[in-house]
Amino acid sequence: MNGAESLVGTLVAGGVEVCFTNPGTSEMHMVAALDQTPEIRCVLGLFEGVVTGAADGYARMAGKPACTLLHLGPGLANGVANLHNARKAHVPIVNIVGDHATFHLRHDGPLTSDVEGIAKPISRWLKTSRTPAEIGRDTANALVAARTAPGQIATLIVAADAAWSQGGAIGSVPAFPKAPLLATKAVEHVAAMLRTGAPAAILLAGDALFGKGLIAAGRIAAAMNAKLLAPYPFTRIERGAGRAVVERVPYVFEQAADLLKEFRHLILVGAPVPVTYFAHPDKKASPVPEGCEVHTLASAAEDCAGAMESLAAALSLGSAAALVEEAGRPAMPTGSVTGSGIAAAIGALLPENAIVVDESMMSGRNLLPLTRGAAPHDMLANTGGSIGIAMPLAVGAAVACPDRRVLCLSADGSGMYTAQALWTMARTGLNITTVIFANREYAVLKREFASFGLGDPGTRARDMFEIGRPDLDWVSMAKGMGVPGTRAASMEEFGKALREGFVEEGPRLIEAKLS
Amino acid sequence: MNGAESLVGTLVAGGVEVCFTNPGTSEMHMVAALDQTPEIRCVLGLFEGVVTGAADGYARMAGKPACTLLHLGPGLANGVANLHNARKAHVPIVNIVGDHATFHLRHDGPLTSDVEGIAKPISRWLKTSRTPAEIGRDTANALVAARTAPGQIATLIVAADAAWSQGGAIGSVPAFPKAPLLATKAVEHVAAMLRTGAPAAILLAGDALFGKGLIAAGRIAAAMNAKLLAPYPFTRIERGAGRAVVERVPYVFEQAADLLKEFRHLILVGAPVPVTYFAHPDKKASPVPEGCEVHTLASAAEDCAGAMESLAAALSLGSAAALVEEAGRPAMPTGSVTGSGIAAAIGALLPENAIVVDESMMSGRNLLPLTRGAAPHDMLANTGGSIGIAMPLAVGAAVACPDRRVLCLSADGSGMYTAQALWTMARTGLNITTVIFANREYAVLKREFASFGLGDPGTRARDMFEIGRPDLDWVSMAKGMGVPGTRAASMEEFGKALREGFVEEGPRLIEAKLS
Repeated sequence: MNGAESLVGTLVAGGVEVCFTNPGTSEMHMVAALDQTPEIRCVLGLFEGVVTGAADGYARMAGKPACTLLHLGPGLANGVANLHNARKAHVPIVNIVGDHATFHLRHDGPLTSDVEGIAKPISRWLKTSRTPAEIGRDTANALVAARTAPGQIATLIVAADAAWSQGGAIGSVPAFPKAPLLATKAVEHVAAMLRTGAPAAILLAGDALFGKGLIAAGRIAAAMNAKLLAPYPFTRIERGAGRAVVERVPYVFEQAADLLKEFRHLILVGAPVPVTYFAHPDKKASPVPEGCEVHTLASAAEDCAGAMESLAAALSLGSAAALVEEAGRPAMPTGSVTGSGIAAAIGALLPENAIVVDESMMSGRNLLPLTRGAAPHDMLANTGGSIGIAMPLAVGAAVACPDRRVLCLSADGSGMYTAQALWTMARTGLNITTVIFANREYAVLKREFASFGLGDPGTRARDMFEIGRPDLDWVSMAKGMGVPGTRAASMEEFGKALREGFVEEGPRLIEAKLS
Repeated sequence: MNGAESLVGTLVAGGVEVCFTNPGTSEMHMVAALDQTPEIRCVLGLFEGVVTGAADGYARMAGKPACTLLHLGPGLANGVANLHNARKAHVPIVNIVGDHATFHLRHDGPLTSDVEGIAKPISRWLKTSRTPAEIGRDTANALVAARTAPGQIATLIVAADAAWSQGGAIGSVPAFPKAPLLATKAVEHVAAMLRTGAPAAILLAGDALFGKGLIAAGRIAAAMNAKLLAPYPFTRIERGAGRAVVERVPYVFEQAADLLKEFRHLILVGAPVPVTYFAHPDKKASPVPEGCEVHTLASAAEDCAGAMESLAAALSLGSAAALVEEAGRPAMPTGSVTGSGIAAAIGALLPENAIVVDESMMSGRNLLPLTRGAAPHDMLANTGGSIGIAMPLAVGAAVACPDRRVLCLSADGSGMYTAQALWTMARTGLNITTVIFANREYAVLKREFASFGLGDPGTRARDMFEIGRPDLDWVSMAKGMGVPGTRAASMEEFGKALREGFVEEGPRLIEAKLS
């Protein structure tokens, strides 16, 4: 068995079922090994930002890692921005990156680069396998690192000669480590605090935002009159009719401060203290009010769902009623296309059990209020602020959940970063409806320019903020990548296209030109 | 004056005229400063791989750096692959990267990342400005580093609070360092060797491949019966009718070895010893034959054009006749579209003084022989092997040389990496004709798979090598980004479209579907 075969065999032994990839010459022996391995489905992306973002989306929905297979330093570098997002999402990913043969590096050929240096900023675990004998063990260790709570990015660089040489052996994959349980004391401290009746909010992250963690949270919120919050950059939330009422902390400082001002206590469950994305000369970094006590019930690396269940038990809530969203769909909007209209249409039409990926940026600011009573669904957000994650995330989510409909909401500026994902949707026949919120500008930058007191942007600044002239024609771009598209000129047309997207097989795109 | 104003003022003082950019919130004060600075033209790219590749193309043709303005670690990371290519091209670039305010970093917000760690692998010079007082000096030092021969990548990270705070001052920009002249001894050694009449080849790089360096090289080749060579990954060559005869060292090992086998001496002028891109278990790394003596006349950091002139002087060649290409254009091909047909059509139709950017990969393997007698032109190649450079390079070259026609040759797989460049071509009204060699596969990978003895790729491997199913429709994609396109189904149609591209204003795209 050569090193490449030991790598792929160890991935199979460790439960990896999907490889998102764009391989090159230095990965040929790994491609050959995958070619013989039906247990792993290979999904090609035509750019590595698609590959790594899809691995993130897959991990969020499958709850376990996919691997990526990337070509040398530049291939990895192209995936770094979405790995930055994945790192902030705390998801498991195993990156396999080929490098030159060990004896070739000294020639410093055109494609030689500092692969470890490129990997370091986004990898929690990082190793280079230089001999076939070590690849199996290294792969097993990468899997364990990736599956260490809450989910980590592990990068294994494989020298080409280590992959092609004989002497490989399947690595022994141990049981994956469970997230550490909380100390009883921490739970009792928070339970006692909640019993005082002082206004309290619980900021949830990780697996406290879905499944049994969220169910327990809903009970606690109802019984203790506490408010459930999610960070603005959340990884995954189960929401909609019948799901616990969770408010997202707004992006804008003043709105976040307004939401938080009533609380005496803020309980963190896997989430950090809220801070603004950017510093401002005249604003605080955190919207948490002075005098609000912050309590960490669980860190991101602890068992967050278990924390909520333990807290519910400590409060003797058993199967008490939860505070959940009432079913309620907005009326279908009519007339001209607006961000709020789109949000209402989604609230009205979303099918049961859909997965909504949201990178609609400023145009989607009413999305959450208008979909709270929609059919139960999962929602995934941009976690690291690096734009261009929506379509890749949607690919990964659709691969993880082939029986569910995926709705992908992308701003036009963000969408241009990784639009190649549309081709992967077509190639793979994924049931994804992509909505492009086409406002033809980086709207957030105009707002930030003003917020810094820089006045009205002049011609040169506007040329950096506006992405019209020429306007992007998303229907043509989608067609070019094999995805049928529609331009919606009214909410009626939008509604029709969205309905079709939710029932037709394969991907669709709707360009919503905002007025 | 705030820090941002001192930065922009120092760039102007240092002769920077173009900023390729995709800014974000952390760069708002630099955008505001650029807004007030008509001396610097800002060119927006909708993805940072476009931005950095354009800066490379600009530097190759302008002979001086543009700056980039990039948003935080992820924005820089998106530009790393083409900065890898630029690093291998030895061109000057000054990257300006915004980071969070110094006091904001400790909050580890969503967009916080290790910006220096991301910059390190591709930066020869790297510094973070943390106070307004140091920005001017740091910018001047970045310019000097970038303009140190042969051209280097300098990355200046600017903390947001350093940019917005008062206390900046324009940095004093010293005279840029000249490339060191050669020692007379080195020149005499090579001159004496050439006088022996033993078969010799001179491998040229840097400014020995254009201008006075190439003219001197042509004289030396004629008088001493030496062969002039260029590395496969060359940065810029002046070629065509009347230009010195230069052979490119082939990509394929056997072909390179065949070209080199006759030589007793190989003289390096700014170029490294030729090595294969990838190691192979059964092949040597270098195609240079055993027994061939390698002499370094000039390193990349020395004055390569001066080296050729000094060598010509040492050989008393004065204004001797040079060995140059004879004018000769292939007949216009007819019938079905092939890579060779396209090469012949280019040879036949190329206008005077065009700039040809070549990333046609395997489909363009006959490009060089079929254009050697074409009208004089510059040609730029992929220098680092990271695909997705052609369209960005073309943007940069067209911005640097507004009076020249640019022909951009891209494989389809490569083109998908940075196709967003088409939008910048349209926005900026650049006279670029982009030809897509659409073979619907990563052809080189199929060949490499076979060359490793891995047999015929199975279904899963083919799914990683083939980029059809669905076929990319480049005319629609280009239309989506505002670039008029044509699909050429015959060489006649191709010729017609190419002729139009060379005379019409603004960008064009021709999709050549290879049979």
